[in-house]
Amino acid sequence: MSTELWRPSLDLALHRNRQSPQARFVQLATVREDGRPAVRTIVWRGFLEDGARLIFATDSRARKWTEIGASPWGEACWYFHVTREQFRLGGPLSVVDESTTDRELLEVRVATWREMSAESRLTYTWPDPGRARVPLAPFPTVPPDPLEPLPHFGLLVLDVSEVDHLELVGNPQHRWEYKRDEYGRWSAAEINP
Amino acid sequence: MSTELWRPSLDLALHRNRQSPQARFVQLATVREDGRPAVRTIVWRGFLEDGARLIFATDSRARKWTEIGASPWGEACWYFHVTREQFRLGGPLSVVDESTTDRELLEVRVATWREMSAESRLTYTWPDPGRARVPLAPFPTVPPDPLEPLPHFGLLVLDVSEVDHLELVGNPQHRWEYKRDEYGRWSAAEINP
Repeated sequence: MSTELWRPSLDLALHRNRQSPQARFVQLATVREDGRPAVRTIVWRGFLEDGARLIFATDSRARKWTEIGASPWGEACWYFHVTREQFRLGGPLSVVDESTTDRELLEVRVATWREMSAESRLTYTWPDPGRARVPLAPFPTVPPDPLEPLPHFGLLVLDVSEVDHLELVGNPQHRWEYKRDEYGRWSAAEINP
Repeated sequence: MSTELWRPSLDLALHRNRQSPQARFVQLATVREDGRPAVRTIVWRGFLEDGARLIFATDSRARKWTEIGASPWGEACWYFHVTREQFRLGGPLSVVDESTTDRELLEVRVATWREMSAESRLTYTWPDPGRARVPLAPFPTVPPDPLEPLPHFGLLVLDVSEVDHLELVGNPQHRWEYKRDEYGRWSAAEINP
């Protein structure tokens, strides 16, 4: 059983918004090397088994990979359009690639690669993201091995340690704050929206 | 005429997504006093006349108001679901309240208040956002003056100085980077998605 007090609310939101293709899109904010914020849309790929860690897939050649190495705290903003509610999930981010020694994480990396769409896997065969595009040069169209991830396929793991849940439906609205203490215990409080 | 090279693409996205109520929702990332990122959904309220500055409304009692004072750089992530494209707009943020001396900004503040829905204006009568909620205490239900903003009604103005535009439609995808130099001149380059 999960001791993450905020999980039932998030699970309910995922269920109630399940028909919406964008329900798996979150905006992940990080801090760049120059101290400025960065934020991009990214697909949520699931939870790790402990229930508190969110998984995202990324290309280790992308700029965020290096940025997270220097500044590992992240905040994900997850807005659900159907139920009009927002979760802000903050915590340390870690990266997982083939050099990771944790066996569970390595297995999740391979499983995530296998569960991705062929279209998503294909993007990992493209040239270095963020570099100048070579005019007229065709991109690879041969799909990569669907079973074995390419070397630069990586995961981002967000170890959620604080949550801000805002429900816009209702007058007044409702908002809860969840925090994990140093012993891993969660507390919850209702706060003004 | 606007010299913001990225505006035609953003204007087109706004037009093509105009039926979608969430087309005006962006995720605004900032950096907290402790150096960690923060990101929340916020409603885009329009452009300032020069065409490069985005307007958002906020409560000056909210935590982000103080945070922006200490760390004024922001990045907005604007994802359009209908056309499957994302704009990341970075630049310095400034705050506008009744003490602002710039006359144009003061007028925009009043105009933004007047254009907001009665439901949105009502939220500014509520007690301090983020504070512990007093159990069972009713929230005000008397609407504020629709013409004159409450004192803690503020604007955030994002002076866009770099843009990353990603189109997910197409195989391969397309991505452009726009930058403003110190003389205010914009350049554009296509980069790898």
